[in-house]
Amino acid sequence: MSEDRLERLSQCLLAFARERDWEQFHSPKNLVMALAGECGELIEHFQWLSEEQSASLTSEKKRDVAHEMADILIYLIRLSQRLDLDLLEAVEEKIAINERRYPAAKVRGDARRASEYED
Amino acid sequence: MSEDRLERLSQCLLAFARERDWEQFHSPKNLVMALAGECGELIEHFQWLSEEQSASLTSEKKRDVAHEMADILIYLIRLSQRLDLDLLEAVEEKIAINERRYPAAKVRGDARRASEYED
Amino acid sequence: MSEDRLERLSQCLLAFARERDWEQFHSPKNLVMALAGECGELIEHFQWLSEEQSASLTSEKKRDVAHEMADILIYLIRLSQRLDLDLLEAVEEKIAINERRYPAAKVRGDARRASEYED
Amino acid sequence: MSEDRLERLSQCLLAFARERDWEQFHSPKNLVMALAGECGELIEHFQWLSEEQSASLTSEKKRDVAHEMADILIYLIRLSQRLDLDLLEAVEEKIAINERRYPAAKVRGDARRASEYED
Repeated sequence: MSEDRLERLSQCLLAFARERDWEQFHSPKNLVMALAGECGELIEHFQWLSEEQSASLTSEKKRDVAHEMADILIYLIRLSQRLDLDLLEAVEEKIAINERRYPAAKVRGDARRASEYED
Repeated sequence: MSEDRLERLSQCLLAFARERDWEQFHSPKNLVMALAGECGELIEHFQWLSEEQSASLTSEKKRDVAHEMADILIYLIRLSQRLDLDLLEAVEEKIAINERRYPAAKVRGDARRASEYED
Repeated sequence: MSEDRLERLSQCLLAFARERDWEQFHSPKNLVMALAGECGELIEHFQWLSEEQSASLTSEKKRDVAHEMADILIYLIRLSQRLDLDLLEAVEEKIAINERRYPAAKVRGDARRASEYED
Repeated sequence: MSEDRLERLSQCLLAFARERDWEQFHSPKNLVMALAGECGELIEHFQWLSEEQSASLTSEKKRDVAHEMADILIYLIRLSQRLDLDLLEAVEEKIAINERRYPAAKVRGDARRASEYED
């Protein structure tokens, strides 16, 4: 069960921060910066790859990429804890919004940004 | 159950992309860029706030922030699908690594970056 | 003269890329990713600092930060070369736009984002 | 003369911030976040483009991209002012470092990251 997994991971991350007395550094502002820093590390793995190469990573590279992605999710979870919000509920809401903003019939095969559909 | 929730959301996101014929744009490289773009939107909510202000958002602002965080998680999930990797397993691995890199007794109350402990 | 300095640096960066046969990797898309990666490295220096601490870096830290900023400017210059656009002219235009968007009398002491003034 | 241009722009940006009483918000930490936010906006223009498409933007798109790049340079300049460092000197130093790290004879046609050469 992943609720158990995700919930267990969340508890684990909270305990990890508390045991190290790191909650004092974990203001939402700082966590957002840490998340952005990890995002930068993820990007660095892909910046010189072609799109094709990015889809066929070696297993070693894939593990490194997975760990960068994990860092991002870790900070997302920590941030949701500090802001006291439900991350999965937010995803559910956002999916509903996207369903309305990007009706399949209108945007099929077209990746323009939402704002470009306003006109 | 969140496994069901997370699993259901993942399926939903996959169907969403396929219905719109967007998988052609969703190379890992492009998804990493999209994730970084959303990360930039998250940052913009916090850049002029003090740390204290960042911990007491209005409910309207908190909802906007939650939706930016959702966008990041959505792209993380999509990326894990395209790379065929297990995001929660990666978090479990990364927590184990961090337990070793940052022993509580050594780093309590200290937020220096890992590399600064090498010396 | 800094035109000479900036112009000389630009020429230097172009030669550097050509000597290494790196222009093949320097598509605008890739350069934007590289720029974002450097931006992540810059953020990592600041994520756990208070605003006050961020204003009184040690000289060693300041040199490291200066080099991260240099990396960002290097990729900005390379990107402007690949896109064949004048970076300083763009800054001049943007300053003029900002003068109109943020009249001093209206926004003095207020850091809300531009979009929040629309209402 | 670009020294005059760059120097004049720097003075202009300083005056702009002071006239709006915005220096209070412009801690180095906050400016780094603002720079990262602008970087996210730049990325969004390129995330769904192929490398080829990224090299042949329409003139309207190119102007938008130039303005995002200008925003990044504006925050770089502001940050160098707040940290009291010389951005062009840092670029000169970084180019010298890169000359040593990436000897042309060794890295020609190879875009692997510096750390991958350590082994």
